[in-house]
Amino acid sequence: MKQELESYFDRLWPICRSLTGNGNRETLKILSEIVDLNISEIPSGTACFDWVVPPEWNAKEAWIKDSHGNIIVDFKNNNLHLLGYSVPFKGRMSLSELKSHLYTLPEQPDLIPYQTSYYKECWGFCITHNQLLSLEDGEYEVYIDSSLNPKGSMTIADALIKGETEEEVLLSTYICHPSMASNELSGPLISSFLYQLLKTKKLRYTYRFIFVPETIGSICYLSRHGRHLNEKLVAGFVITTIGDDGKFTYKKSRRENALPDRATELVLKQQEKDYIIENFSPIGSDERQYCSPGFNLPVGSLMRTRYGKYKEYHTSADNKDFISFDAMQQSINTYFDILNLIEANHKYINKIQFCEPQLGKRGLYPTLISQKENADFVSVMMWLLNLADGTNDLIDIANRSKAPYKLLIDIAQQLVCKNLLAIN
Amino acid sequence: MKQELESYFDRLWPICRSLTGNGNRETLKILSEIVDLNISEIPSGTACFDWVVPPEWNAKEAWIKDSHGNIIVDFKNNNLHLLGYSVPFKGRMSLSELKSHLYTLPEQPDLIPYQTSYYKECWGFCITHNQLLSLEDGEYEVYIDSSLNPKGSMTIADALIKGETEEEVLLSTYICHPSMASNELSGPLISSFLYQLLKTKKLRYTYRFIFVPETIGSICYLSRHGRHLNEKLVAGFVITTIGDDGKFTYKKSRRENALPDRATELVLKQQEKDYIIENFSPIGSDERQYCSPGFNLPVGSLMRTRYGKYKEYHTSADNKDFISFDAMQQSINTYFDILNLIEANHKYINKIQFCEPQLGKRGLYPTLISQKENADFVSVMMWLLNLADGTNDLIDIANRSKAPYKLLIDIAQQLVCKNLLAIN
Amino acid sequence: MKQELESYFDRLWPICRSLTGNGNRETLKILSEIVDLNISEIPSGTACFDWVVPPEWNAKEAWIKDSHGNIIVDFKNNNLHLLGYSVPFKGRMSLSELKSHLYTLPEQPDLIPYQTSYYKECWGFCITHNQLLSLEDGEYEVYIDSSLNPKGSMTIADALIKGETEEEVLLSTYICHPSMASNELSGPLISSFLYQLLKTKKLRYTYRFIFVPETIGSICYLSRHGRHLNEKLVAGFVITTIGDDGKFTYKKSRRENALPDRATELVLKQQEKDYIIENFSPIGSDERQYCSPGFNLPVGSLMRTRYGKYKEYHTSADNKDFISFDAMQQSINTYFDILNLIEANHKYINKIQFCEPQLGKRGLYPTLISQKENADFVSVMMWLLNLADGTNDLIDIANRSKAPYKLLIDIAQQLVCKNLLAIN
Repeated sequence: MKQELESYFDRLWPICRSLTGNGNRETLKILSEIVDLNISEIPSGTACFDWVVPPEWNAKEAWIKDSHGNIIVDFKNNNLHLLGYSVPFKGRMSLSELKSHLYTLPEQPDLIPYQTSYYKECWGFCITHNQLLSLEDGEYEVYIDSSLNPKGSMTIADALIKGETEEEVLLSTYICHPSMASNELSGPLISSFLYQLLKTKKLRYTYRFIFVPETIGSICYLSRHGRHLNEKLVAGFVITTIGDDGKFTYKKSRRENALPDRATELVLKQQEKDYIIENFSPIGSDERQYCSPGFNLPVGSLMRTRYGKYKEYHTSADNKDFISFDAMQQSINTYFDILNLIEANHKYINKIQFCEPQLGKRGLYPTLISQKENADFVSVMMWLLNLADGTNDLIDIANRSKAPYKLLIDIAQQLVCKNLLAIN
Repeated sequence: MKQELESYFDRLWPICRSLTGNGNRETLKILSEIVDLNISEIPSGTACFDWVVPPEWNAKEAWIKDSHGNIIVDFKNNNLHLLGYSVPFKGRMSLSELKSHLYTLPEQPDLIPYQTSYYKECWGFCITHNQLLSLEDGEYEVYIDSSLNPKGSMTIADALIKGETEEEVLLSTYICHPSMASNELSGPLISSFLYQLLKTKKLRYTYRFIFVPETIGSICYLSRHGRHLNEKLVAGFVITTIGDDGKFTYKKSRRENALPDRATELVLKQQEKDYIIENFSPIGSDERQYCSPGFNLPVGSLMRTRYGKYKEYHTSADNKDFISFDAMQQSINTYFDILNLIEANHKYINKIQFCEPQLGKRGLYPTLISQKENADFVSVMMWLLNLADGTNDLIDIANRSKAPYKLLIDIAQQLVCKNLLAIN
Repeated sequence: MKQELESYFDRLWPICRSLTGNGNRETLKILSEIVDLNISEIPSGTACFDWVVPPEWNAKEAWIKDSHGNIIVDFKNNNLHLLGYSVPFKGRMSLSELKSHLYTLPEQPDLIPYQTSYYKECWGFCITHNQLLSLEDGEYEVYIDSSLNPKGSMTIADALIKGETEEEVLLSTYICHPSMASNELSGPLISSFLYQLLKTKKLRYTYRFIFVPETIGSICYLSRHGRHLNEKLVAGFVITTIGDDGKFTYKKSRRENALPDRATELVLKQQEKDYIIENFSPIGSDERQYCSPGFNLPVGSLMRTRYGKYKEYHTSADNKDFISFDAMQQSINTYFDILNLIEANHKYINKIQFCEPQLGKRGLYPTLISQKENADFVSVMMWLLNLADGTNDLIDIANRSKAPYKLLIDIAQQLVCKNLLAIN
């Protein structure tokens, strides 16, 4: 899977994504090779709650020439050079006028910043601060061949894997950042390969994968599917900034003790040496919409080093060097563990509620209980039987007993087979 | 205000206050210059719940002469010299008989103790322990010109500032300690100047100020107004021992999580480097009555160094040297901050419950969100909008977001103006 | 009492107890001298929930002879030598065949282990590991004169002390371990002497003492009395491993905040310097049955060093040297304190709910409140009066006030006499 991840990364990296445009269509077309995507076009101007879908933006060419006619900044070389949603422009100007259109990072003078201006019409270029300092006086020529089409559309996609029930688990990621690695491509890539892992499995829940531009995309999606999600969603995750090899960071849902919060905390506690649990905050990614007060959906976000917490964030340094395909593989495994736990998280009921079942006659009690490994097995089984009163779910039982959740899942299945336990 | 505080302090200091008597009337007359007081006389003998208003006590003159005819202890020099509620007495006696009527502080031999005997008829003098040790054998002459009038009355006062609603905030202080500074005069002075600050303000709540002798005064007040307070009171404070420059001490109401508790803890947490929060206890001042089980009113007490916690407490050393008019000014400000927070502590509801409002089109979203100060403003606004679901009040939102409560109040008002937020 | 404890210990020690058999009958006969026991015989084969009472086991003689005809292991010397529930056997065999029937503790080579095989038919001997190592090749003779009678019975006993109400407190201990001191005899001995302390007292609750073999005994008892206990039980304790002088260990009931949990925690907190509180777990003694999900009875267990936590556990070293009769005496006192607290744990209601009662006129308020000891008395009385609103029980009041529970009980009784307090 690591090689596949890298190969898809390399194909997706050069594409210029934004809120709208052909780059997004191309991205979804490539991901369609892995995920059975339903792709929709939402016309510019469509109202979604308090928002309106913006005009479609496409950029073909953009550069700055110095007074000698040399191209000194070229959109071709790096998608970040062009301010997102720059209007078309052609003209000549002095250095000082040009500077009012240039964005740099004085404290990281070697890096190109990532900047956009979605809702205010303007144009600009992002360059390294060192380049800014090296610019000489003189006349500069600027050319931006972009278009903002009010009759265009925004492209979004989803994919469903049907489970036994209509209750749903949501996996949401975004496709609007051009040429950034952890803060963008890690999200759609991990989502897509999780889809592959899940689609061959017998599933209890229905899984909904969403690939949309951040903010306006999820708002638009919720304007169409929010009522359904309100009824059906049991757990959801926003998948973002999960490409580096930093420790896991889990940001809780607004409810703070919802199923994704409880499942993720248990998996991290039992499997990771070091990790971060953050309380919900309304600053962040698309959980801002899922957790808006009217929806208040059970949606958290499992990341590695969180957006805003690493110095490469929103710069040209969030690139292939910054991420690790080994770590991405592990991230997929951890998400998969969490989803498996959610699948297995039943409320069980012990069919023998009064006193202990006699385990010996069912071949469940080792003859010599003094052996350590037998004692551990018996102990976990006892916990499960004792707490299986129909009110505790498996996560409750794991938390109270401190037993490994995977062993609990395994023993629960054995006890269901022996007809000692039933799903409530 | 500092100079006014000091000037009133100097006028109130020499007056001999007790449960009843002309000293209390004189005190309330002076405070009437600041507060629009309603003064009532409750006849001695009036039953109030389990208690009875005591006879009215007044003392004109009281001294001890030694065998040479020299006055060695004189009530004129310090109100504390005469045991509170001493019966009239005139007679000669040996030193050993006299000693059974003298009260001293052996461990603080330079200080005169404060002692009373309200409900057991006797007489006595309080003197320094050093003076006691210096007394020579011989005959002493004692004279106490006091009166205990069963047809007298107890004087109490209150003042109301009407707000928009009938719901009330209570500020209660006592006027029964003669010539003590933090443990008495700080209370009525800070109450009175808070009254002045509030009376010119447009207020949501109605404010009730009470000036009564401790215990019997508040019991008597509750016997008349307790039922009303039970219906209308949202928050109350007993104002006492708040004259020194020690750190703030807040004693919680019996409910421990009532509005005054939550508001005070938030203000202290955000504004003070160091402070003390004490749980409720039924030992203390008039919160004992307000928080008796039948009332269980939301009444706490914000103090500086609490009664019983400083060595000058209930002695002649609790005097002008012990207190600080700067600190008293700050104490008024802190009480005022708490009351302002209580006034602003609405449950808000975001008018756009589904997904975020688009802040940009309302001029509420900075063009470049990468700037720190803009990010802070946006962050606090986001918290407010996200948690404004009609169930969280402003204190909840401040606690969960850790945002400065004054900024939250400010932004809430802006969002109400922009029609994005409504008071629930 | 110490001498009596020791004398009964010495008489009970040599008896071979098991799930069933004459040793259990003899044990209960001796305990009948202290406790007014109702002894019942439950026929082998009787079904109790998921279990069946096993055949009755008795062993008269059991030994191993070496090739020289010397008896090298003899049941007469130590009850532990014979594997519990060994079937009758007579035969000759090689050392290697014999070894498959020998149980030892390689890590404690001087100790005889305690082993049983209740539900799988087999025979065996338990010896020290050192003896095992010293055995020479050759033919061995084995003789076990035991019987497993399917027409026998299991012997159980209980004793009731009637209180004013039908609500019950349960004290449960077990009688199935042969010749072990803390893990067995401490339990029945402490139970029996607690019975003696309680039977002369005027009691609010009815006390139920149970003496049964572990697991099958309590399951059988619950199959007959479980419904009654479900209705009537307010608190219960499993008394086990409480004979050594280690610090107290309290294992909470499954409910974790039930009356026995709250009472024991308060007594230990106020009386012991060091102690251990353990959460409930379904591994342990008969609380496994009392706290099975269908019953979920309020039953905890106060022990000294817990089973499984000391190296002498389940070996020949859990003997008279390991325990302390002084400590057992203290353990009885601590259990007695807990039961007294449970008896006194009323919800009180202050008859004067509005404002404080005037304590002075009832002789409850010291004239000079400045004296420390008076202040303490007044403080505890004030707490009691303030919290006596009919919702708080005495344990709540002790926890919130941090007042000594014994002083609270004492003052509550005084206030009931003065007609200020009533039991709610």
